[in-house]
Amino acid sequence: MIWKQVDSSRVHRLFYPQVPTVVTVGSKGRVGAMPAIWCMPLSFNPTLIGVAIDPEHETYKLILESEVFAINWLDCSYASRIVELGEISGREYPNKLSAVGLTAVNGKRTSQPLIQEALAVLECKVHERFRTGTHELIVGEVIEASASDFFTDYWDFSNYDPPLYAGTADGGTRSWVFMSTRGVTVRVPLKHTA
Amino acid sequence: MIWKQVDSSRVHRLFYPQVPTVVTVGSKGRVGAMPAIWCMPLSFNPTLIGVAIDPEHETYKLILESEVFAINWLDCSYASRIVELGEISGREYPNKLSAVGLTAVNGKRTSQPLIQEALAVLECKVHERFRTGTHELIVGEVIEASASDFFTDYWDFSNYDPPLYAGTADGGTRSWVFMSTRGVTVRVPLKHTA
Repeated sequence: MIWKQVDSSRVHRLFYPQVPTVVTVGSKGRVGAMPAIWCMPLSFNPTLIGVAIDPEHETYKLILESEVFAINWLDCSYASRIVELGEISGREYPNKLSAVGLTAVNGKRTSQPLIQEALAVLECKVHERFRTGTHELIVGEVIEASASDFFTDYWDFSNYDPPLYAGTADGGTRSWVFMSTRGVTVRVPLKHTA
Repeated sequence: MIWKQVDSSRVHRLFYPQVPTVVTVGSKGRVGAMPAIWCMPLSFNPTLIGVAIDPEHETYKLILESEVFAINWLDCSYASRIVELGEISGREYPNKLSAVGLTAVNGKRTSQPLIQEALAVLECKVHERFRTGTHELIVGEVIEASASDFFTDYWDFSNYDPPLYAGTADGGTRSWVFMSTRGVTVRVPLKHTA
């Protein structure tokens, strides 16, 4: 293979496609929510996951206040809601879920807001935090995990069509691009961000 | 949505599908290589990535010796090689890449073994290490990034068909299951592991 150099500003895109999760958190009457693609498991036992967040996000500040948060998985049919969550700020919307037409329900163990439309959710408490350059890796201990009938031992991908985030490149109008495992590409035009 | 509880042993599978990277490393004449799906970006500047590895792996030990390593992306057409790398041990094979029919080439900046068949590679030096339960998160600073013509600002997914790891469930013989964004599913039967 003949390779050429990739600029450091594009390295994260080599990891595409990635399934975005949505991080949700409640604190002092506010509901924060943001898409997070830098999110992965970190340990089997205890069950730990890590999500890397830019500390400038309102959602990050709410997590520090509440010390608990949730991870939500939505079907590709909700791609435009995921995009909207990424484009509006918690500074303007005290309840970001209702602002984009999603429904908050209370978690079983944490009373944290979960997304009722989600196919799977993790309730986590902050276990540790590591600063990593521009981001902070929040390590969460999973204290409750729940999923719809579309997940048993594994996902049933005939029912769950995961949104596969592929970047924001596009001809003409810039869009968030999601691929699916069914060969379909969904483009959601950028509204708020450049 | 009606949810049921998910056992903690299955939480990591909620993150599927994920694109496996292959971690490669050379030390004292040996070449280590292992598939890693717990791998993601952690910072834009400096450019940091994290890969969570079970310290029992030989590849982990080689990374500690060399303090440098590489991340490689292979097309879905190499799914069976990725599986083989996960099923054989560096304890038995001093050069795991040649053992599965892949070609090691020297990195530009690190002289670390890269996979010649890879569509993109990152050369990293160990920046920090965090223990997270059963795993250790190795934070790598990317000191060189290279990709084929299939990556410019973004991946060209009409040429790169990423292997989307979906688990090892299957009817009949147990297999590693990979989906593609073209609606095709590839099953590679398990050989060495249960």
